[in-house]
Amino acid sequence: MTLDLNSDLGEGFGDYVMADDAAMLDVVTSANIACGFHAGDPAIMRRTCALAVERGVRIGAHVGHRDLAGFGRRAIAVTPAALRDETLYQIGALDGFARAAGDRVRYVKPHGALYHQAAADRALADAIIAAMREYDPALTLLGPAATELEHAADAAGTRFVGEGFADRAYTPEGLLAPRGLPGAVLDAEAAVAQALSIAHDGKAVGVDGGAVAVSAASICVHGDTPAAVEMARRIRAALDESGTAVRAFA
Amino acid sequence: MTLDLNSDLGEGFGDYVMADDAAMLDVVTSANIACGFHAGDPAIMRRTCALAVERGVRIGAHVGHRDLAGFGRRAIAVTPAALRDETLYQIGALDGFARAAGDRVRYVKPHGALYHQAAADRALADAIIAAMREYDPALTLLGPAATELEHAADAAGTRFVGEGFADRAYTPEGLLAPRGLPGAVLDAEAAVAQALSIAHDGKAVGVDGGAVAVSAASICVHGDTPAAVEMARRIRAALDESGTAVRAFA
Amino acid sequence: MTLDLNSDLGEGFGDYVMADDAAMLDVVTSANIACGFHAGDPAIMRRTCALAVERGVRIGAHVGHRDLAGFGRRAIAVTPAALRDETLYQIGALDGFARAAGDRVRYVKPHGALYHQAAADRALADAIIAAMREYDPALTLLGPAATELEHAADAAGTRFVGEGFADRAYTPEGLLAPRGLPGAVLDAEAAVAQALSIAHDGKAVGVDGGAVAVSAASICVHGDTPAAVEMARRIRAALDESGTAVRAFA
Amino acid sequence: MTLDLNSDLGEGFGDYVMADDAAMLDVVTSANIACGFHAGDPAIMRRTCALAVERGVRIGAHVGHRDLAGFGRRAIAVTPAALRDETLYQIGALDGFARAAGDRVRYVKPHGALYHQAAADRALADAIIAAMREYDPALTLLGPAATELEHAADAAGTRFVGEGFADRAYTPEGLLAPRGLPGAVLDAEAAVAQALSIAHDGKAVGVDGGAVAVSAASICVHGDTPAAVEMARRIRAALDESGTAVRAFA
Repeated sequence: MTLDLNSDLGEGFGDYVMADDAAMLDVVTSANIACGFHAGDPAIMRRTCALAVERGVRIGAHVGHRDLAGFGRRAIAVTPAALRDETLYQIGALDGFARAAGDRVRYVKPHGALYHQAAADRALADAIIAAMREYDPALTLLGPAATELEHAADAAGTRFVGEGFADRAYTPEGLLAPRGLPGAVLDAEAAVAQALSIAHDGKAVGVDGGAVAVSAASICVHGDTPAAVEMARRIRAALDESGTAVRAFA
Repeated sequence: MTLDLNSDLGEGFGDYVMADDAAMLDVVTSANIACGFHAGDPAIMRRTCALAVERGVRIGAHVGHRDLAGFGRRAIAVTPAALRDETLYQIGALDGFARAAGDRVRYVKPHGALYHQAAADRALADAIIAAMREYDPALTLLGPAATELEHAADAAGTRFVGEGFADRAYTPEGLLAPRGLPGAVLDAEAAVAQALSIAHDGKAVGVDGGAVAVSAASICVHGDTPAAVEMARRIRAALDESGTAVRAFA
Repeated sequence: MTLDLNSDLGEGFGDYVMADDAAMLDVVTSANIACGFHAGDPAIMRRTCALAVERGVRIGAHVGHRDLAGFGRRAIAVTPAALRDETLYQIGALDGFARAAGDRVRYVKPHGALYHQAAADRALADAIIAAMREYDPALTLLGPAATELEHAADAAGTRFVGEGFADRAYTPEGLLAPRGLPGAVLDAEAAVAQALSIAHDGKAVGVDGGAVAVSAASICVHGDTPAAVEMARRIRAALDESGTAVRAFA
Repeated sequence: MTLDLNSDLGEGFGDYVMADDAAMLDVVTSANIACGFHAGDPAIMRRTCALAVERGVRIGAHVGHRDLAGFGRRAIAVTPAALRDETLYQIGALDGFARAAGDRVRYVKPHGALYHQAAADRALADAIIAAMREYDPALTLLGPAATELEHAADAAGTRFVGEGFADRAYTPEGLLAPRGLPGAVLDAEAAVAQALSIAHDGKAVGVDGGAVAVSAASICVHGDTPAAVEMARRIRAALDESGTAVRAFA
C-alpha cells in the first residue's frame, strides 16, 4: 500500500512569505510549486526546486490564473486558448529551475479557482492537458478524480492521479464539502484518521457522518500555518506507522 | 560573406500591439522574442515562435527587466542572483513555446536597460551567462561586442555573437552614439549603406564622420513603425543584392 | 434636444498606444478615462485629463478589473467588498490628475467585463455605487439603462445616465445584440442614422429590423481604429447639423 | 518636548501579510501607508486608514517605485516626470480611503530605494514635491533631514519634517550607517536610549562611538517582526515615561 503526500509550496512573492516550505518538504513526497502567476517568483522557484531535489521530493507545476492580487482564488473567464498558453508558459518557466536543480517537472496540478473551473469545464481541462502534452507527454495530471480533469486526461492518454484531502469532509457525491458547512473542516485527529482511511480503505468522512468513497493516490496537506505543518507531520507519522509506503506517485 | 539580421519581436501585451511582427519575420533571420517581463505574454510568445519556425527564423530569448510599465528601458538595480533567476525563468518560459513550434531557444539577447547594464557590469553579465549555461550550454549570447557581455561569455566558454546597428552612428570607441547627438540617427539610405559597410568591411559611420571598426556578425533592425519595417526591407534587399548571404548566425 | 457623446480614452500603458485620444477629445463631450487597472498609467492619466480640460470635455473614471493582461474584458469573480475597494482606489487615483488639470472626476463608468457583471449583479452594482458615494456623493453613474446599475443608483439616490451605442443593433429587449449575430454591427452610415434616431426618437435598430426603444442621454463612440475615429466624427457632425446640442450630460 | 513616532504600515498585498499593523497603530502617531506600488492594495489601504483614524494616528502616503517584486527596494531609473505622475497617482488613491475613513492624507514619505534616490537627486525630490503641491499644498514631507528632499521642500515652501531611526547608528556626517558596518544596528536597549537621546538632545550614536547631531521631529520604528513590535513598544513607553509628548508632528 502506497500513498503520495502533496502540498502547495513556493507560494511566496518577493519579500512576502506564505508557508514554511522547508518544513513541508520534510513531510511530503510531491511539491506543487507555484510558477509566478498566482504566486511565486523566480527566486523562490529556484529555492523550492533545489530543496525538493535535495529531499527527493517530486516537482510539479502548480499552474494558476495570472492574478497575484487574488492569489489565484478568483474565477477568471479565461478562454481555453489563453489557458493553454498560460499553462505552457508556467510549466516551461518552472522546468528551467527543476532542471537546474537536477530533476524535471513531473506533473501538473491546477491551483485555486482554476482547479475548480477546469474540474467542471471540459474545454478548460482539455486546454491544460494540451499544454502538458505539447511540453512533455510524460507529464502526469494531479487533481480531483471523477471530474472533467480526469476525463480530459483519460481521453488524451495522459496519466491522471486523483487527490484527496485529509482535513475536509466530503459530500455523498464524493466532492469536498464547502468550508461553510458544519462539519466540513476536520480537526487534526480526525484528519489523521481520514488520511489512514483514504489510504487503506478508499473512504473519507461524509458531512452526513457516513463514509464516502474517495479514490486518491495522493493526499493534499497544507503548510500555511504552524498548526497546518504540525497536522501534516502527524499525518505523515501515522501513515508511516501504519505501514503505508509514503512515496511519490509515479 | 554571411550576416545575420535580428529584430526585437513579440513585444505586444494582451490587446496591445507594438510592431508588425509578421512583416519583420519575412526580413530577419533571428527573432529576439520578449518573454513576458518587459513585454510579451504567453499568447504572443506562442504566435511569434510559430511564425518564426514557419519562416525558418532562429528563436532567441529577449530577456529583460520585470518592468512592463517601463518597457524594460529603465535601469533597475537588480542583484546578480535575482537577474540569474529572472533570466532562467524567461528562457524556460519561451523555450516551451519554441519547442511546441518544433524548435528550441537558440540564443539570448538582453533587452533595453539590461542590455546596457550588463554590458558595463561584469557581475550582471556573469549572471546572464550562468542562467544560460544551466539551462542549455549550447545557447549563444547575442549582444554588443567588446563589452562585459562578451568577456563573460568568453570566460565561460559560451559562444558570443556581436551585433551592430544599421541606423545609428558610432563613437570613435565603437559604441553607439547617444540618440541626442547630432548625426546619431541615420536615415534609410545611410542605414542601408552602413549595413553593407559593416557586412563587407566591418566598418560603421562615426559621429565625427570618420569610419569606426564594428565587429558584428548580426545587425539589429526594428519593426515598430511602418518606416522602420520599410528600412529593414531595404537593408535586407541591399544585402541580398550585394551577394551577402543573410542567414542565422549559428 | 441634447445628447452627450462619450468614449473610452487613456487606454494606453507605458509605451503601448491604444487609441487616438487627442482626435477623440475633439469629438466627444465626456471622457471615460482608464485608471490603471485594466489599462492606463499615471502618465497617460495626467495627459488625458489635461487634454480633456483644455477641450472642455467632462472627466469620468472608467473603472475596471485589475487585469491588464485581459484588458478588463474577462469576467473575474470579484467580491463586492473587493470591488468597492478597487473602485474607490481608481476614482481617487484619477481624481488627483483631474484636479491637477483644474477639474474633478464627475462620473463613473464601469469597463468591459465589469460593465456586464455589474449590470446583472445587484451586489456588484451596489459596491460601485458605495465607492462612488463615499468618495463624492455628487458623482454620476454612466452605464446601461434598465439594469442593476441603474437600480442600484436609484436606490442610493445617485444620478444615473443611460448610454446607447450608435454602431450596434439591439435585441427586442433593448440589450446590445451580441457581436456574433448577423446584423449586430452597423456600418458607418447606419451608425450615424442610429445616433440621430436615439437622440431624436429614443429608438435604435433591432436585430430583427424593427425599432427598439433605447433610453440614452449619452452615446458611446470608439477611437481604437482610424475608421472608428472617422465614424465618431461623422456622428458628431450629423448631430450638430440636426440641431442636437451635443454636450456633457450634467 | 514632543516627538512623533512613524511606521511603515499597510505593506501586505492580497493574501500576503507583512507586519502587525494593528499592534503598531497602538504605538505610533503617524502611519506611512503603502499605496499599491511597492506594496499595499485597495483592501489593506482601506483597513489601515480606518484603523489609523480610529486610533487618532495621522495618515501619510508612503509612495514607492512600481515594483512589487522588489518591494520598492531596488533603485529604478525613473524620470522626474514619471515620478511626479506616479506620486500623484499614489497620493490620490490613498486619499480616497483616508477620506472614506473620515480624515485626509496629511503627509508624504518616500519608500525604500526612492527614499534614498530622492534624498540624493534634486530633480527627483522636486518631482515628489511638485506632485504633493498640485494635490494639496498643505501636505508635509517626511524624510531624512539635510538632504535634497529637505532642500526641495524648503525651496517650494512645503513643510518638511526630519526623521531619525532609533535602532541604527549614524555616520559622523549624520547619515545612517550602512547595515553591513559593525555596530550599525542597535539592540533594543540601545535603541530605546537613542530614541530618548534624539528626542531630548538631538543626538544619536555614531558608528565611531561618539555622538552625532540628528535633527528629527519624528522617529521611525518597524513592525515586521514580533521583536520589532516589542522594541517599538519599549521606545514608546520610554518616551512616555520621560515626559516626552509623543504625538503627530503637525
